[in-house]
Amino acid sequence: MSSDTRDTLIGAAQELYAESGVAATTPRQVLQRSGVGQGSLYHHFPSKRELAIAAVERTVSTALAAAEADLHGEADPRSRLAAYLQRPRDAIRGCRIGRLTSDPFVMADATLRDDVAGYFRRLLDEVGAVFREQGLSDGDARDRATAAVAIIQGGYVLSRAAQDPDAMRSAVRGFLGLLGER
Amino acid sequence: MSSDTRDTLIGAAQELYAESGVAATTPRQVLQRSGVGQGSLYHHFPSKRELAIAAVERTVSTALAAAEADLHGEADPRSRLAAYLQRPRDAIRGCRIGRLTSDPFVMADATLRDDVAGYFRRLLDEVGAVFREQGLSDGDARDRATAAVAIIQGGYVLSRAAQDPDAMRSAVRGFLGLLGER
Repeated sequence: MSSDTRDTLIGAAQELYAESGVAATTPRQVLQRSGVGQGSLYHHFPSKRELAIAAVERTVSTALAAAEADLHGEADPRSRLAAYLQRPRDAIRGCRIGRLTSDPFVMADATLRDDVAGYFRRLLDEVGAVFREQGLSDGDARDRATAAVAIIQGGYVLSRAAQDPDAMRSAVRGFLGLLGER
Repeated sequence: MSSDTRDTLIGAAQELYAESGVAATTPRQVLQRSGVGQGSLYHHFPSKRELAIAAVERTVSTALAAAEADLHGEADPRSRLAAYLQRPRDAIRGCRIGRLTSDPFVMADATLRDDVAGYFRRLLDEVGAVFREQGLSDGDARDRATAAVAIIQGGYVLSRAAQDPDAMRSAVRGFLGLLGER
């Protein structure tokens, strides 16, 4: 029951952070969104920072699990990369994690900054491993993985700028076109 | 003299926006950074919004002029694309314009949102024109241009996340490797 309340609070914070970022989200908004009482909020998360760490770490775990589901498995490397790059994304909303790199609350806190940095480090390792399966050297696999993850992060920025989800799809098509012709 | 004061205010706003974004920048900070008197600020820019529009539009013009300097000219298309992609960038600071897609003040204002959208629309047209010179169809050139601009925007996000400028360089190397082998 107590653990359910904690989960509810984390879920509400995750939603609000995806909408407005961490810096702009107040404890009052988390209370309203969650429907949980004020005492429970301060019991589970005495400060905004503690809630932010729990919510960001859960978002990171979920995102890594989704990437691993695409990148691991039986299919050939090319198909797994395409599955990762083409997975349906809410492109106009932007990346829940990438956007945190412009969030003043996150960037001012070493733990939150490390959570964000750790997400991309692990994601680049996973994508790089698939390029190494294709016979690339460690350095070339790393560069190509960084390009692949940049395509997704940049696709989010361009989709948000244009308020058009096709920018993400166009960036992915352009990149897969270059990958596919080899 | 009056025009100098206006330029000084715009320059101070541009710097502060690059550091902290538009939403988090107060008129008081602009006054302090610019050294201009309060009366002059309100004379030139009666509201935060009017200063934001002037400063964002100047940032957009400067960024487009820099991209055009790389993408136009006598060199072969491949070299011009490489010049655009490899231009030294303050990668950890992030893109002055791309970061505005996560700025609540900008995204809530139709004029500012259009300024940001217009920047990327014109940039994609410029990059796409160079790929068309290489013989690509309009659609393929558009997709490849979107990928190229996404590499830069995603490179900024990854460099900010890692607090390491090499992420941008790695993404660009990975993308140029794919372009260069064709």
